[in-house]
This record gives sequence, C-alpha cells and structure tokens, in this order.
Amino acid sequence: MSLVVVGSVAYDGVETPHGKVGRMLGGAGTFIALSASFFTKVNLVGVVGEDFRAEDESVLRDRGIDLSGLEKAPGKTFFWAGVYSDNMNERTTLTTELNVFADFNPKLPPSYRSAPYAFCGNIHPALQKQVRAQMTAPRFVGGDTMNFWIEGTPKELAETIREWDFLLINDSEARQLSGEHNLRRAARKILEMGPQTLVIKRGEYGAILFRPGGYFVAPGFLLEEVFDPTGAGDSFAGGFMGYLAQQGVSELDQASHQHLRRAMIYGSVMGSFCCEQFGVNRLRTLSREDIERRYQEFKAFTDF
Amino acid sequence: MSLVVVGSVAYDGVETPHGKVGRMLGGAGTFIALSASFFTKVNLVGVVGEDFRAEDESVLRDRGIDLSGLEKAPGKTFFWAGVYSDNMNERTTLTTELNVFADFNPKLPPSYRSAPYAFCGNIHPALQKQVRAQMTAPRFVGGDTMNFWIEGTPKELAETIREWDFLLINDSEARQLSGEHNLRRAARKILEMGPQTLVIKRGEYGAILFRPGGYFVAPGFLLEEVFDPTGAGDSFAGGFMGYLAQQGVSELDQASHQHLRRAMIYGSVMGSFCCEQFGVNRLRTLSREDIERRYQEFKAFTDF
Repeated sequence: MSLVVVGSVAYDGVETPHGKVGRMLGGAGTFIALSASFFTKVNLVGVVGEDFRAEDESVLRDRGIDLSGLEKAPGKTFFWAGVYSDNMNERTTLTTELNVFADFNPKLPPSYRSAPYAFCGNIHPALQKQVRAQMTAPRFVGGDTMNFWIEGTPKELAETIREWDFLLINDSEARQLSGEHNLRRAARKILEMGPQTLVIKRGEYGAILFRPGGYFVAPGFLLEEVFDPTGAGDSFAGGFMGYLAQQGVSELDQASHQHLRRAMIYGSVMGSFCCEQFGVNRLRTLSREDIERRYQEFKAFTDF
Repeated sequence: MSLVVVGSVAYDGVETPHGKVGRMLGGAGTFIALSASFFTKVNLVGVVGEDFRAEDESVLRDRGIDLSGLEKAPGKTFFWAGVYSDNMNERTTLTTELNVFADFNPKLPPSYRSAPYAFCGNIHPALQKQVRAQMTAPRFVGGDTMNFWIEGTPKELAETIREWDFLLINDSEARQLSGEHNLRRAARKILEMGPQTLVIKRGEYGAILFRPGGYFVAPGFLLEEVFDPTGAGDSFAGGFMGYLAQQGVSELDQASHQHLRRAMIYGSVMGSFCCEQFGVNRLRTLSREDIERRYQEFKAFTDF
C-alpha cells in the first residue's frame, strides 16, 4: 500500500576518509523514498529549487517514486556539506544553506491523500502535524525529529507526536526528549507521550523497537568498509516503513508485532547498504535479491 | 568439565551515581570464577594477602569453587579504586595498589592440571603462557589481555595467543592489537594470529563472536538500572567459558558452533546480572532459574 514520504530533497557535499564529493543528490526525503521504493509505492512530498537537475529527478523517477508532490520553487535547492572524522564516528557540518527548504510547507496532492502510511522526515513539528491532517485514511503515521525541535519547540512537538503511531529517533534524541538517560526508561516515557511504537536508532550498533508490551533489539550490520554513512538512518527509516506499508500493517493488528520486528531488520539492511557507496549510489544499483540475501545474513548471524 | 580460572582476587573501592563502597571483594579472577561457577566446576588460581578476610573466601567457597590454587602471600591484597561518571560510560581509576599481585606467578596445583578448560585473566602474557604449559590435556584454552600488554609486550603476547584457542577482548583492544579500525577486518587479522575463536566485547552494546567460518552478534541486555558495571566483562567471560566447559565443547568439534553462540548469550546474561548490584553482590544471590529466565528473554527480544 502507498507510503507518503515527507522530507528534504537536497544536494550534499560529503568528505570521508575514502574521498570527497562536492555536490550530489541527498536529503532525508530522498534517502527515505529511495529505500522505501524497494518495498512499496512511494509518494514523495518535498521542495527543490530551479537548479535541481533532471538527471537527479530521474534517479527518483526510475525507482517508481511519484513526484507529484515534489514542488519546484524559485531559488536554489537545500545544500548541506559535512566532513567525517577518520573513524567516521564524528561528523562536522561545514555548510547548511536551507534555500527553498526554508519555506517548505508540505502539501499532499489529492492523489496522495488516501495513502494509509506516512513518514515525516525531520522538519518543524507544526508542519509535520499538518501531514496527518491532510490524510483521509491514516493507518500508520509517524516520523523523525531532532534535538533542535526537542529544545526549541517542545509544545508543538508534543502535539504532533501525540497523534502519531510511531516515532523513530536516535538514542541521544530519545534521552533528550524523555529526560532519562536509561533507554528503557526513556522509551517508557516516550510511549506515554502518544506513539505506541518507538524505534531508537543507535548508529552502528543497530536499533531498538519499543512497544507497550515488549521490545526487540536489531543489531547493526558489520560492514567491512563504511564508505559514507550519510543517509544511513534515513535509509533505515525507508526500509522500516516501506516493509510495513508493503505488508499492510495496522497499529491495531496483532499480527503486526512480527512484521514490526522484520521491518526493523529490513531497515537495518537498507541502512547498511547505504553506507557502502557515496550518497545514494548504492541505493541506485541495489536489487531486491541483494536485500533478501542480507536479510538472510542477519538471520544467520543472530540465530542461537 | 573443570575450568581453571586464573586472575586477580582483589579488593575494590567503587563509586557510582548510586553510591559508594570503600572496600569490597572484587578482581577479574573473582568475577570470572563466580560467574562460571553457575555452569561448571571452577578451579581458581590467584594470590591474596594476609588481609584477605575469611568471609570473602567463603563467598567463593560457597559457590563450590576450588581454592587449592589461591595462594596466600605475605603482604596486602591487590586493591583498586575507581569512580564512574554520571552516565556510567566513563571510569576513572583513583588507586591501583598491586601489593601481592605484583609478584603473581600462576601455579596450577596437581589436582587442576588435567582440567581441559582454562581462562587466563589479564596478566603479563609470559605468565599467561605458562598456564597452558602446566595443563596435561588442554582442550579449549585462552583468555583476556589489555592495552598495557598490547603496547608494552607485543612479542610475548603474540607468543601466548598463538597457542590459544580463543581470545576475549574489547573493541578498542581488538583495534589496537590488529591495527585495524573496522572490526571485521580487525577480527580477520587476529584470527590469523592463532586463536580460532575471537570474542570482541562492546560494553553495553553486547559482543561479537568471530570464527574463520562466520560470526555471531550478541546484543547487550537493556538494564533499567546499571548499579555498578565493575566486573561485567569478567562476568561475561565466566558465563561464556562456564557454559562451554559444562557442554564439553572442543575446538575441533563441529557441534561446538551452536554452543559457542549460546555461550555468548550466557556470557551476556551473566554480565547483565553483574551490573545490577555493587561488586559481586548480585552473583551471590543469583539462581540458575534467574539465568534461564534471562536467557529466554534474550530469545524473546532477538527473535524475528
């Protein structure tokens, strides 16, 4: 079933110990949409500037992503540049030029509104809230946030996530949002804020799924070479949501629990592939067989 | 089958955000032996001073640990004191008084020598080497090391681990020993140094088992409250080796692979219990049923 993905479509400049790319297709919405497109029909909502290249639009279109919701605005596309430390554990932002993304106000085209699934990338929580409001039959809706909104707009964020079925954040964001250092206690507090499904990402160490009735720990994949970690968390989100949308999972459905666990693994699989090449390159060449093979590898290295 | 445990028996002073204990039973050998004692017969080799209290000896004896190899030397028992940061992620050593441990030279009493299993805690690699040399029918022998020996005595360390069946170290030690940041590549290099079983501990994130034919990732247990992490890695080692000794695992035995995976989980179980109270307190009150219950919890939160 269809998944609406809301988020930035951008140009990234990235430097890692493996090399440097001055300008390439990036943005959370891009990674989420590309990753989810291996599982389900994706409807993208975003904004780009006049400098957005036809060949980059084709990267998305070639994966069958609906771009009716990708607005083209006067001005330049969001640009971000960053550099990774030698061991890739730290990232320093060099440039953030919001450009047309500064005035982004997500509008779902009529053809998107009946989609049951939506993932809202990290934007102002008041804008995230409007996404769900535009959906006519929301079944499983949620998204991401970041420290900037947790600190700056806590009230708006609380109102948004109160209506969400799931929240997908990293460990430091979970600690900040809950005021609890311990992840189990942090998770319990966050589940009381609204979302009944919480995914806490832990970078290379994997991710944890928390539900009122239990939890599930997904390990990170041990890559031999991390080429460029940019977009790995968003690729996780895309694999997670794409699989759930493919399976038609409903929050109220008991059978969903097993699907949620598998979605965590598919998310991890997609995040791991993303790191293998610069930017979206690996997601462009990936096949469904590659994904299944790595999913089976997760089975093999976790079975006891 | 019997397991020889070689390592420090000490007094620890520990301060965590939950409280402070000025002096209590500790030491790697103590944690390893206590943890392993839930699975198999343990023969401890260590040294204590004249100040070693009868009640602390009873803690070991009450768990059925053979103390024929626990030497009592003139002088004081090894004393270590440290303080943990607020989030427990950092530990600062306040005092290290080696005392009688400075001259420790592990001697296996005749009754220990036919034991097939041995775990050598972190001491000078030349001394670790002598442990295996004293065994008459070694089946699965290995141990731990640390940055101090990796830097200071690389030649002796290489000679020791060349003869070992397994090595159990943490991620930063694995990186230092191999000169590789990436854990998969680090593991490949270390497996070429001798041990055909390598366990890399990752603190709260769990541990990874590497073998020439594959690997296994054990997640860390999500405790709600980490009271005192001192000894958690040693308790992991004790659970890991204790289970293998109980199962009679042989390095050459194909059936061992599944046992090695389960041993990783039992290690994680024991490490998690250790953190629940100060020092060895939780290991004193633990039951085999508690262990099985947590093992099943690992099954539940990793199954997909």
